[in-house]
Amino acid sequence: MEIYEDIKNLFCMCRSITGKSVVDTLNYIKNKIPINILTVKSGTKCYDWQIPREWNIKDAYIKKSNGDLVVNIKDNYLHILNYSSPINKIVKLEELKKHIFTLEDFPEWIPYYTSYYKENWGFCMKHNDFINLIEDDYEVFIDSTFDENGNMNYGEIIVPGKSEKEILLSSYICHPQQCNDSLSGVAVLMHLTKYLLQKNNYFTYRIIFIPETIGSIYYLSKHIETLKKNVVGGYVLTCLGDEGEFTYLKTRNENQFIDRVTLNLLEEYQKNYKIREFNTCGSDERQYNYPGIDLNIGSLMKTKYGEFDEYHTSADNLEFISPKGLEESYNMYIKCLDFIEINMKYKNNTICEPFMTKYNLYSSLGGSKISNCMFYDILKILYYVDEKNDIIDISKKLNLKINYTTELIKILLDNNLISLT
Amino acid sequence: MEIYEDIKNLFCMCRSITGKSVVDTLNYIKNKIPINILTVKSGTKCYDWQIPREWNIKDAYIKKSNGDLVVNIKDNYLHILNYSSPINKIVKLEELKKHIFTLEDFPEWIPYYTSYYKENWGFCMKHNDFINLIEDDYEVFIDSTFDENGNMNYGEIIVPGKSEKEILLSSYICHPQQCNDSLSGVAVLMHLTKYLLQKNNYFTYRIIFIPETIGSIYYLSKHIETLKKNVVGGYVLTCLGDEGEFTYLKTRNENQFIDRVTLNLLEEYQKNYKIREFNTCGSDERQYNYPGIDLNIGSLMKTKYGEFDEYHTSADNLEFISPKGLEESYNMYIKCLDFIEINMKYKNNTICEPFMTKYNLYSSLGGSKISNCMFYDILKILYYVDEKNDIIDISKKLNLKINYTTELIKILLDNNLISLT
Amino acid sequence: MEIYEDIKNLFCMCRSITGKSVVDTLNYIKNKIPINILTVKSGTKCYDWQIPREWNIKDAYIKKSNGDLVVNIKDNYLHILNYSSPINKIVKLEELKKHIFTLEDFPEWIPYYTSYYKENWGFCMKHNDFINLIEDDYEVFIDSTFDENGNMNYGEIIVPGKSEKEILLSSYICHPQQCNDSLSGVAVLMHLTKYLLQKNNYFTYRIIFIPETIGSIYYLSKHIETLKKNVVGGYVLTCLGDEGEFTYLKTRNENQFIDRVTLNLLEEYQKNYKIREFNTCGSDERQYNYPGIDLNIGSLMKTKYGEFDEYHTSADNLEFISPKGLEESYNMYIKCLDFIEINMKYKNNTICEPFMTKYNLYSSLGGSKISNCMFYDILKILYYVDEKNDIIDISKKLNLKINYTTELIKILLDNNLISLT
Repeated sequence: MEIYEDIKNLFCMCRSITGKSVVDTLNYIKNKIPINILTVKSGTKCYDWQIPREWNIKDAYIKKSNGDLVVNIKDNYLHILNYSSPINKIVKLEELKKHIFTLEDFPEWIPYYTSYYKENWGFCMKHNDFINLIEDDYEVFIDSTFDENGNMNYGEIIVPGKSEKEILLSSYICHPQQCNDSLSGVAVLMHLTKYLLQKNNYFTYRIIFIPETIGSIYYLSKHIETLKKNVVGGYVLTCLGDEGEFTYLKTRNENQFIDRVTLNLLEEYQKNYKIREFNTCGSDERQYNYPGIDLNIGSLMKTKYGEFDEYHTSADNLEFISPKGLEESYNMYIKCLDFIEINMKYKNNTICEPFMTKYNLYSSLGGSKISNCMFYDILKILYYVDEKNDIIDISKKLNLKINYTTELIKILLDNNLISLT
Repeated sequence: MEIYEDIKNLFCMCRSITGKSVVDTLNYIKNKIPINILTVKSGTKCYDWQIPREWNIKDAYIKKSNGDLVVNIKDNYLHILNYSSPINKIVKLEELKKHIFTLEDFPEWIPYYTSYYKENWGFCMKHNDFINLIEDDYEVFIDSTFDENGNMNYGEIIVPGKSEKEILLSSYICHPQQCNDSLSGVAVLMHLTKYLLQKNNYFTYRIIFIPETIGSIYYLSKHIETLKKNVVGGYVLTCLGDEGEFTYLKTRNENQFIDRVTLNLLEEYQKNYKIREFNTCGSDERQYNYPGIDLNIGSLMKTKYGEFDEYHTSADNLEFISPKGLEESYNMYIKCLDFIEINMKYKNNTICEPFMTKYNLYSSLGGSKISNCMFYDILKILYYVDEKNDIIDISKKLNLKINYTTELIKILLDNNLISLT
Repeated sequence: MEIYEDIKNLFCMCRSITGKSVVDTLNYIKNKIPINILTVKSGTKCYDWQIPREWNIKDAYIKKSNGDLVVNIKDNYLHILNYSSPINKIVKLEELKKHIFTLEDFPEWIPYYTSYYKENWGFCMKHNDFINLIEDDYEVFIDSTFDENGNMNYGEIIVPGKSEKEILLSSYICHPQQCNDSLSGVAVLMHLTKYLLQKNNYFTYRIIFIPETIGSIYYLSKHIETLKKNVVGGYVLTCLGDEGEFTYLKTRNENQFIDRVTLNLLEEYQKNYKIREFNTCGSDERQYNYPGIDLNIGSLMKTKYGEFDEYHTSADNLEFISPKGLEESYNMYIKCLDFIEINMKYKNNTICEPFMTKYNLYSSLGGSKISNCMFYDILKILYYVDEKNDIIDISKKLNLKINYTTELIKILLDNNLISLT
């Protein structure tokens, strides 16, 4: 399965919010879909923040005095505290311990820690290994660099539609060796982009691959006027690879376009699903929905970050996700994107009921006869096509499935009995 | 009972949406109340529709080869498929059967079918008679005419009130030999018109007697500007003759003036009643409430069309309805019309509480003493007379009967403590 | 306890809506807080009303023919029908009875009756004493005066704040020898005024001590423009001395600023409390909330007038109230006034999340460390600081205690991360 393969290919890289491996990741994506790779200088101010120095790492390990390796970044990139300062020093166990992060509750897993904005050096390791460390002179070696004249990189592709109005789709490319968190979103979004590229769309789709938080804050600072003018909604894509139930994280303002579309489709297509309030959020939707920004971006996930034990550990790996989980996510997103394209407020093209006999409603269904029941449902739908109700409203009013209402709305559009307002 | 007598007099006529018997019906009405009878040419365009050719029928029957009559329009006008083409032909049983309509579930009843816009000939008959038909050469004879230079007719009377604002009352005159459906509404409306004519009204009442669907569409097309400017609500009157519970069919927009008035009065005066959503509608309210028209017209019925077996059959006859049922309907409509005239938003004529001692609230009640309790209720009512609340709002706020609040509002009006905004 | 002492000092005075004892009461208040004592001439028109003649009384009693006193105003000022006309006459029992008011249900209590606007003379007494009256020639003596050139008096103090916007605090000073009704409100308000005078306030506080009804109507007529422009809410203070549960009487318009503040604080701080609809009102809030006036004034009481038996009787005395009850009321009012000062809609001073590392959130808490949990709560609060939500909205959204949210809002204000809109 292609989505899973992409994740596999992208997995073993020591990504961070800046650095060479982010560029490698973007190049991999560009090889599949025609994104632009963009660059912003370290030190650039964006709102309350500034782009950090570019961080790169070549090697990192801890060695016992006898030369045995305790941890080695080559085994797993999570071993290094992300954005760690360089060091090359012999330290006693006591000092070493102050720079080691473990998970007592999951002693066989390596945790994933970062220290982007506070200088520090450190390693992450299995708790079981950590407790076996004895008094010794340890060699700690971290060959990392901070470049003040470096860059932060991100990817962007605009898929133009009939309308200037935009749907924003955002994923983050800053996590090293994390499958469900980050990479599953990146890979699903690559394939959704392919899907959008091969058809005519009503909305314009703005698709971005960015480092989390600083990436979205920079992106907002650069495009805020356009985004506020055009974006009608969108998603942050992440945590799409497991086989759990879907979770929808609502926008800050709630009951927005994207909330209504997603929650109603979940209701129609999923037996069980979870809903989370915006204030339990954690990814770039925090910025997209910040007061005054208000792009009204939701997040449709499988199991939400923070709600599975493997989150931010070495257990969020290729075994944790599955082709089946990814496919379910991809398919549900396709349903959402398709419905976003048609769930409009239409206007009625006749004053009073149309003279139905004139219209050839049969042909619209590929020659098959419209049943009596469908005929009456079409009339009922017409009563509520009044520039105020979208397909969801009409379905609820008439207690019809959204999918069925959508089918009849298409017939009405084909017969020019209704049209876009 | 006069209403019942009028139905009896109007019953045996072969009405349709056009033709001589519609004119006869209108002349009968004009003999009782001063309506205008209006005429529109066949072929006239109105919105998506056009006025059909005028249809008239003199005779129609089916005869066996031995000369015995199988069905004869003179027995019951339902026998003819309404708007049937003329024919004079000998046919085999097999062909005949294609042109006969029956009701398997009610084999002793003749159904009522129409074919206004699709040319066809046909007969309706009892299913029991139908299954006894044997192979034979049948003479089918229909002496009907279509006149392209004919007319459609309807009746109208405007009862002017103090205000330009209008209440629309509409009934349909196109059904042959149907009592509850159609005629009960026509007859009750005739008598409500008499009631309105003999008193001074606040609202202007626009009362029409039209052929269903094409009549309302034409009427709308002719008066749409005035109607949209002035109409604040109204009713389609039909199905008012049986002794079942009241049913209220809501306007499309719901919670409109007419909905609030009718539903609250039903709540106050009827032990049981039914409410139906607009999308289960079927008569001229479909057009009056169509998106963009939005006259907000409801329909207060006894048992709703489509919800009694006798509907559109020969069993919807003079036995199916009763003077008692008609009287209940008439009385309930009187309550509604009376309340429509007073359920306004009033303004308070004093700033702060009035100095009550000054006002002679006793005389308002014809000399009888206002009880202490009524005195406090008057004060409470005054707190909510603020140009925003109508009598229904105030009654609900204070948990008082609408009828009682109305009585106290009249006292306040008489004492000039409140007035129309 | 000072509040209780003030009530004790004010208790034994024959107050009414006008007269010398009202001035004495105002002078007592002025001795404690710098109010202005204002005067308005009898006969002055205000809206539908006019200021009554000034009433004063020197003596009043009923004597048996043998010289024994039946009632004597010196025992209790409730004995006189308030605003009684003067009289000096010998009357038979039968006539006397027409002028005596008692309480059959509470035969040991003297009721409190008034006749401000209908000339009458009368006495109030215990029912047990009343039924023991025998046939006799009774001397009735009332040494009262009505002065057409007299005055009505009231007190006022404006405590200016940063904003022109005002909170109105109103109590009434017209009841003779009533502790919970009237005096408890007057005394608590005196001490709240002291509290407001010794600090810097955001709102301007308009504090008045007036005769009930005619006082508020006159006050409104004089200041209506300013009040309608500036008042955002306030309270009528009364019934604050018993140890019952708190009762909140809502404004006419409901869900106004003062309703939200008070009801949410009651919910947070009181195990049990009662809510009453505006239409069960009885004091000056009737005028302040009258349609068109709409100052949106609530009333926070202990047990509401009309809901305790002692109301308007001699049993509403110094034993009925307690220092504990008064203290509870004072403290709850302090919570309300403090919260009124801070429960604003703030705006976020950063676009996107602030770069938290820059801000020294620790110092705000006096050097104590902000817990991790508080840190995340601060972020969550920031998401909802959007010029639309006040502290109550945010607390509800996040399911936090109002008090805790308020504490964190203060930290954000101190760090200039948010500010007043």
